[in-house]
Amino acid sequence: MKKTVVICLFLILNCIFSYSQRKMVHLPDLPGYVTLKCDFHLHTVFSDGEVWPTVRVDEALRDGLDAISITDHIEYTPKKDFIPVDLNAAWEITESYAKERNLILIHGTEITRKMPPGHFNALFIKDAALIERDSVWDSFESAIKQGAFIQWNHPGWKSQQPDGIPKIYDIHKRLLKNGWIHGIEFFNDNEYYPLVLEMCKQNNLAIMGNSDAHGTISEIYAKDTNRPMTLVFAKEKSHDSLKEALFAGRTLVYFRDILAGKEEYAKPFFYQCISVNKPYYQNEKSLFFEVTNKSDIPFYLINGIANAPAFITLAANSVTRVVVNKSVKLPLQYDVRNVLTGEKQVLKIELKY
Amino acid sequence: MKKTVVICLFLILNCIFSYSQRKMVHLPDLPGYVTLKCDFHLHTVFSDGEVWPTVRVDEALRDGLDAISITDHIEYTPKKDFIPVDLNAAWEITESYAKERNLILIHGTEITRKMPPGHFNALFIKDAALIERDSVWDSFESAIKQGAFIQWNHPGWKSQQPDGIPKIYDIHKRLLKNGWIHGIEFFNDNEYYPLVLEMCKQNNLAIMGNSDAHGTISEIYAKDTNRPMTLVFAKEKSHDSLKEALFAGRTLVYFRDILAGKEEYAKPFFYQCISVNKPYYQNEKSLFFEVTNKSDIPFYLINGIANAPAFITLAANSVTRVVVNKSVKLPLQYDVRNVLTGEKQVLKIELKY
Amino acid sequence: MKKTVVICLFLILNCIFSYSQRKMVHLPDLPGYVTLKCDFHLHTVFSDGEVWPTVRVDEALRDGLDAISITDHIEYTPKKDFIPVDLNAAWEITESYAKERNLILIHGTEITRKMPPGHFNALFIKDAALIERDSVWDSFESAIKQGAFIQWNHPGWKSQQPDGIPKIYDIHKRLLKNGWIHGIEFFNDNEYYPLVLEMCKQNNLAIMGNSDAHGTISEIYAKDTNRPMTLVFAKEKSHDSLKEALFAGRTLVYFRDILAGKEEYAKPFFYQCISVNKPYYQNEKSLFFEVTNKSDIPFYLINGIANAPAFITLAANSVTRVVVNKSVKLPLQYDVRNVLTGEKQVLKIELKY
Amino acid sequence: MKKTVVICLFLILNCIFSYSQRKMVHLPDLPGYVTLKCDFHLHTVFSDGEVWPTVRVDEALRDGLDAISITDHIEYTPKKDFIPVDLNAAWEITESYAKERNLILIHGTEITRKMPPGHFNALFIKDAALIERDSVWDSFESAIKQGAFIQWNHPGWKSQQPDGIPKIYDIHKRLLKNGWIHGIEFFNDNEYYPLVLEMCKQNNLAIMGNSDAHGTISEIYAKDTNRPMTLVFAKEKSHDSLKEALFAGRTLVYFRDILAGKEEYAKPFFYQCISVNKPYYQNEKSLFFEVTNKSDIPFYLINGIANAPAFITLAANSVTRVVVNKSVKLPLQYDVRNVLTGEKQVLKIELKY
Repeated sequence: MKKTVVICLFLILNCIFSYSQRKMVHLPDLPGYVTLKCDFHLHTVFSDGEVWPTVRVDEALRDGLDAISITDHIEYTPKKDFIPVDLNAAWEITESYAKERNLILIHGTEITRKMPPGHFNALFIKDAALIERDSVWDSFESAIKQGAFIQWNHPGWKSQQPDGIPKIYDIHKRLLKNGWIHGIEFFNDNEYYPLVLEMCKQNNLAIMGNSDAHGTISEIYAKDTNRPMTLVFAKEKSHDSLKEALFAGRTLVYFRDILAGKEEYAKPFFYQCISVNKPYYQNEKSLFFEVTNKSDIPFYLINGIANAPAFITLAANSVTRVVVNKSVKLPLQYDVRNVLTGEKQVLKIELKY
Repeated sequence: MKKTVVICLFLILNCIFSYSQRKMVHLPDLPGYVTLKCDFHLHTVFSDGEVWPTVRVDEALRDGLDAISITDHIEYTPKKDFIPVDLNAAWEITESYAKERNLILIHGTEITRKMPPGHFNALFIKDAALIERDSVWDSFESAIKQGAFIQWNHPGWKSQQPDGIPKIYDIHKRLLKNGWIHGIEFFNDNEYYPLVLEMCKQNNLAIMGNSDAHGTISEIYAKDTNRPMTLVFAKEKSHDSLKEALFAGRTLVYFRDILAGKEEYAKPFFYQCISVNKPYYQNEKSLFFEVTNKSDIPFYLINGIANAPAFITLAANSVTRVVVNKSVKLPLQYDVRNVLTGEKQVLKIELKY
Repeated sequence: MKKTVVICLFLILNCIFSYSQRKMVHLPDLPGYVTLKCDFHLHTVFSDGEVWPTVRVDEALRDGLDAISITDHIEYTPKKDFIPVDLNAAWEITESYAKERNLILIHGTEITRKMPPGHFNALFIKDAALIERDSVWDSFESAIKQGAFIQWNHPGWKSQQPDGIPKIYDIHKRLLKNGWIHGIEFFNDNEYYPLVLEMCKQNNLAIMGNSDAHGTISEIYAKDTNRPMTLVFAKEKSHDSLKEALFAGRTLVYFRDILAGKEEYAKPFFYQCISVNKPYYQNEKSLFFEVTNKSDIPFYLINGIANAPAFITLAANSVTRVVVNKSVKLPLQYDVRNVLTGEKQVLKIELKY
Repeated sequence: MKKTVVICLFLILNCIFSYSQRKMVHLPDLPGYVTLKCDFHLHTVFSDGEVWPTVRVDEALRDGLDAISITDHIEYTPKKDFIPVDLNAAWEITESYAKERNLILIHGTEITRKMPPGHFNALFIKDAALIERDSVWDSFESAIKQGAFIQWNHPGWKSQQPDGIPKIYDIHKRLLKNGWIHGIEFFNDNEYYPLVLEMCKQNNLAIMGNSDAHGTISEIYAKDTNRPMTLVFAKEKSHDSLKEALFAGRTLVYFRDILAGKEEYAKPFFYQCISVNKPYYQNEKSLFFEVTNKSDIPFYLINGIANAPAFITLAANSVTRVVVNKSVKLPLQYDVRNVLTGEKQVLKIELKY
């Protein structure tokens, strides 16, 4: 008989709250590498951010990150009437806090100039104060001397580049020639710049994706929306391996349901996310098989061949049923609409069991 | 500088909607067994439910189930003025629909009597019409002849057992003596009956947990709340293996953040969910290590020993940091507050790396 | 001092669950009229839907509707092997069920033909069985004799109109000439057809928006997304007033964050939703005032004049701060991007305090 | 026919993001008073909080508050190595920022001592630095000289009162006798102290409810859960009216689904939230009428009289159907389980149309 259940009997236990947990982000490793989830662009009250540095560590754990860098501006410190300028303060405050929480913390800072050349993060530095120089060239040189990985930030940011399209100025050419730029942001905040994929491929740079958060992450990104992150394929989870991998350009970037990067990483990453099972059923006309996507990223397959579905959504953390005509020849070829490998190019993949 | 991002640039792609997907439920297998997620108690318009039978299949896929049984009432068919009574209709309508979707469908029905003996599901039957008999004893006999697994439904349902406490009447004793009851519901709808754990242990029965849904699942259970389900540890994902495992009593039940069942299954299941890593850090006083819980079930560890945390929440799909005094001796012992192994008993576990 | 709150102390009380409630939808009345929230296109197991008719009433209450019509197909009854065809069954089953719940139920049915003429709902009928005729013209005639309001359903549905653009065929012209079409769907399911606004304005018809639900509403529309609905401006909340208002064409349609309809209703409706307060603050350069939007619909104001914001989002159920240069002259003129009054036309409004 | 809608056609417009909006909290005014939603206990980086002061203003707008006070600790400033102690800094930083946003900002600070006497907020002060004194009595005297309203914070906080039960020590008696305590927190963070209701009634004090937030509000309280707030019944929305109302003790406190305070305010507030309509339907046995709850607070009515429902949930922002036997005499009497008017006392109300 129909039961009119009226009162919920359970004491909800799950409100025990703590910052001791790191969320598991379901993103696979690549063969021979671990996938480190990273955000290399964050601000605090020590420049123009709105939070204390330890908040960036807490947020990173909650979001399942493996590494972050706090990169307060060198040349822009609007809170100095209340907080004395100390370019290494955020690093000092969080160094052991991060260690105790198994988060890799990268010492960083942001060189903050008008365009050109714009804004740059120097990562893996030793002393941000030394990078504060009148000449931007001197700032770069000081960072390089410290062994920095230098990332060009939001090259299409409209406040500096009104048409939104990244442009390589003379100074960028000279920096590139010197080997003083090692990566460029494709994702920054809520923006992305498709041309960056080509710029990175041509100059053999790492493709970067970061939040550039000033306020709190939970207010910038809606619940159930991840922040932009750089996926770094490192030999192991350690500070030095991360550094090696970045200089080697082994990255993809991920935000909302878009994955972007060089095909050499995007393709094996896709195949690590999914698996295709043998058919579980057939009838007179059709074969039925399942594709498992064990990652947090949905994949939108389009442009299917004849006798196969024209498009398939491989939802995140799901098993998708695929029905094909028995006459179809494997493999099935598809474009993955949300995996970008070039300015106007998406990943091409094949499904076979 | 602080950027006032104003317009969201992304076309949200993820609204492609389809019933082709089965959600991945993160619940591990046991060594030698696959964990089948099942709901063995569902109604449709063919008795007093509100949905067409195929809806039960669609819902099951969305919820990540491996097997269901539609168990319309034999003796209660309030829609008969509009829908002619046909006790096998739901089975006929969904049989191939389920096969095409890789869902194990169990032919079932509900024997629906006043207490005693109350309501019982006969599962793995061949013809529900034969079970419609004046005498409840004859109904049981007919089901047993068909090879049925018989489950006692919601034994503490207040409409039939006003104090909410399951009671074994004479007829139950006779049925048990005959071997005609094989399982009892611990979870039903939004209720649970702690005493069922003891009843099942004493009589060597399977512990069952089901939704008993009449309306649509998505309106009964809040978003992000799973329905009650029976976890069956089967030798493989197949109809026959499922049947063998049920008769062998290899089950746990799961609803919201409560897991319940016999210790012999609850303990290895817990250890399959979690893993303890070597310490990643130490300082003068403390050791820091991580416990990974890769399941969808949080575990609330309480009653910790001296020099270790008094309680630890191993959040679902998370890595939890544990800090202990260097003097502590492993293993750490805990009670798992939300894993019930008896009427007043919870699982005891040990953590060691 | 910082407190590490660890355990949530509250028993969550709010899980008492019931279908006794009607959600309050915050949509204002128009002067002289009450705004009735309606869905005039719904299916059940009596044609090709998946739910029992009372589910449509329960869903309507949960969604805050005032009126619905269940409009099962006349010519398409794929469940007839299990459910004998009875074109008035859904009406009979829900008539008193709706009355007890203060929901206006409109007796309706769907004439279901190939294009042309396509599908049409006959609303306010007395006997659907009489409308089952070989000739579609005869079906229309029978409906009209019963006093029906006839709605042309999803005129751009791609299964019948592959380019997605509604087209007026000869038979439509004859039906219109006879006065046998009284409204056209602009919203249907997840689609909308901009051209319908022009067709309705030219022919003096009511603009309609409905869900055309076959499955359950809660699975078709994401949580926090309303279903498509027709807002009818009736003299009072009653069956007859609703009918009078529909024939008079006093409607708007609403889905997600889009409102559409004739300017004569859209404009006063907008002004009923918002109010502009006197400035609460000024400094040397600027005046600060607030605009309250007490409706559930956000309004996206664009194309602002000089010295005022270029665009303003009046978020739903919110008070929005507006800062203008002191030199600006009121009123401020805006286009409301998400209030459509023609195929390529949006509502123009003015803000003044 | 059943339509398999596959691709969502709408560009989601509603992601235009801004801090310009104040959420509308649906809590009614009392006759003669406006209901101001307030949080009088907040921390920033200027003591042991984790956010910049303007964040507290932004959060307040998002949560629909009318007034806040930032109350950094006087005696506890753990960030002083990086941020020089400045007890009025948060006030200076937010004063005009709040004015431009139409938020009432109360200059406040927290006197932070061991128990007894514990922690106290001094509100409506002029200079927090003057309150920093060796003797707590001198601190109180300085605050009182500045015209402060003094609130006793979290009197049952277990770090200071291990059994969790507020206790009035000698110094409290002397402070009360002097008229130097004007309110006590009933809600603080995620805790509440039932005894505070009696303490406030006996001593004629205002009942207070505040978040005491150190981190960001959005991470402390789950989405869709309001923070604790004090509802102040003021003659108008202004700094001075708010002050007058607080000294007069015209408050209620609200958190999750619990409302608490003196019956003289709780009762009329309840009746402002709800309205009872005339019956819309009757049959042979029963009368059907509706109760509208236009507030954000659900009300759980229990202990109904014979022939009426034993309990009724008046869900927030909903219209609830009530069915009574025709023989029942109005008014219906109920206890409101979640409106607390004493340590062990709930509000008693009557429903009549």
